[in-house]
Amino acid sequence: MTQPEIVREPGLMQQRLIAQKRAGKTVAVVPTMGALHAGHRRLIAEGRKRGDILVVTVFVNPTQFGPNEDLDKYPRTFDSDLEICREEGVDFLFFPTDALMYPQGYATYVETREMGKRLCGISRPTHFCGVTTVVSKLFLITQADVAVFGWKDAQQLLILKRMAQDLNFPVEIVGVETVREPDGLALSSRNHYLSPQQRSEAVVLSKALGEIQRRYQEEHETDSALLRQEAFDRIARDSSGRVDYLEVVSMETLEPVGRIVPGKTLVALAVYFGTTRLIDNIRL
Amino acid sequence: MTQPEIVREPGLMQQRLIAQKRAGKTVAVVPTMGALHAGHRRLIAEGRKRGDILVVTVFVNPTQFGPNEDLDKYPRTFDSDLEICREEGVDFLFFPTDALMYPQGYATYVETREMGKRLCGISRPTHFCGVTTVVSKLFLITQADVAVFGWKDAQQLLILKRMAQDLNFPVEIVGVETVREPDGLALSSRNHYLSPQQRSEAVVLSKALGEIQRRYQEEHETDSALLRQEAFDRIARDSSGRVDYLEVVSMETLEPVGRIVPGKTLVALAVYFGTTRLIDNIRL
Repeated sequence: MTQPEIVREPGLMQQRLIAQKRAGKTVAVVPTMGALHAGHRRLIAEGRKRGDILVVTVFVNPTQFGPNEDLDKYPRTFDSDLEICREEGVDFLFFPTDALMYPQGYATYVETREMGKRLCGISRPTHFCGVTTVVSKLFLITQADVAVFGWKDAQQLLILKRMAQDLNFPVEIVGVETVREPDGLALSSRNHYLSPQQRSEAVVLSKALGEIQRRYQEEHETDSALLRQEAFDRIARDSSGRVDYLEVVSMETLEPVGRIVPGKTLVALAVYFGTTRLIDNIRL
Repeated sequence: MTQPEIVREPGLMQQRLIAQKRAGKTVAVVPTMGALHAGHRRLIAEGRKRGDILVVTVFVNPTQFGPNEDLDKYPRTFDSDLEICREEGVDFLFFPTDALMYPQGYATYVETREMGKRLCGISRPTHFCGVTTVVSKLFLITQADVAVFGWKDAQQLLILKRMAQDLNFPVEIVGVETVREPDGLALSSRNHYLSPQQRSEAVVLSKALGEIQRRYQEEHETDSALLRQEAFDRIARDSSGRVDYLEVVSMETLEPVGRIVPGKTLVALAVYFGTTRLIDNIRL
């Protein structure tokens, strides 16, 4: 088993990886906020296949949390994260501090404008600016050739693809399918916030999405308004969840579409259980 | 004399330079909007000393022009620019189109927030966002190790240093002293817009700055308000120019300072002659 090299200082991480690039190696990076679970393992395993050097970054990025969000209570599990990185053959674990990433006087932000204001961007207006900023920094620090993200965060993945293309990052963005619990709930570090009752109700997210998929694939229903209404009704009937959004959108622009366009449509939702907000999505 | 290779397509330019980097070469880039003059020659000569491979970019970047600015009438002199690049030993001339840099659906912007709102940012509120965005793209396309900019555009240079540091660009930003006409007027492509009368009056910019420098260095006057007032009075007395701003600021934050701090102070001004806006500055 590899012992990952832990690096905390961005300049040092960059120097080490520039040296690897000069030696002809390719770099794959898996950016995470830690609290690694089986979903992250899948991302890391994909990264292992994609680059000579595999870097996992663990950074609970403050700029992507809103003022009333869960930055302080977000789980930090470094020892367990390190163990998973060891098991998955990670070469470098980049684990910076807030002050190393955003020193005094920090002032630069990267923003992908319209796409960041839709879906999750409505209730989290500064979230995706924080994501695109930190990922730009991580791409430059790690000199990434390939970066791996989960489809669980579909909006994030699509925004990062747009950002990488727009800014000419020489980075291939790879999306990995969502990993689910046996009952269908998408894995998320935020699932741990749920009470037992909420946890059992939360299966309604994947059930509602699965029903949309069935109605489309088996019954050829393509009317977004109808499919949305059925899903809303189901969530209201089967859970105490409060829907933040449930949208049928273009994967390219994230704008709502009236009818499903095969291969180009994302159905995405966010539902609150108490103060815990869960997201999920399917692609049609 | 070298014949520079002209490349128009960003992806191709990036591929060519990634190959050079893999072969162990360093890349110096001089980003310009073309209309190259003796000031640019100085930047290019500096770039020639700093990198194995020298890239000059020529792109009149639409995102850094405001809606009522001079984008359409900005001089385009490609044949002469190419000749200067040939004389100065440039290896690659990157000369993209607007549509190649900002294709349909383009949505990503880089912004260095507070610094971009001061000085020129007051009358040109979107200008520096356009600059930081296009320079981020150019750094990534050219895989720059070193980038050369003129102190003529001091605010731009200081913002780009901040941006490169904040986003962890592995790029050294080099500033080159302003080149001036015999009477002191800083070289600028926009000087060609001036009438003969305006051209002769425009010397007041460098004269006013020179007088501040003399008052500080010889008479040890450090009071920003007093030095500013004297410069305002001189410009009003000796020209028909309308002052857009004349500020004594910190080089680190661009915030006004009450007294000159040795080695850390920028005196910057912008003056309109008719519709032509000229800028100049000194460092104290």
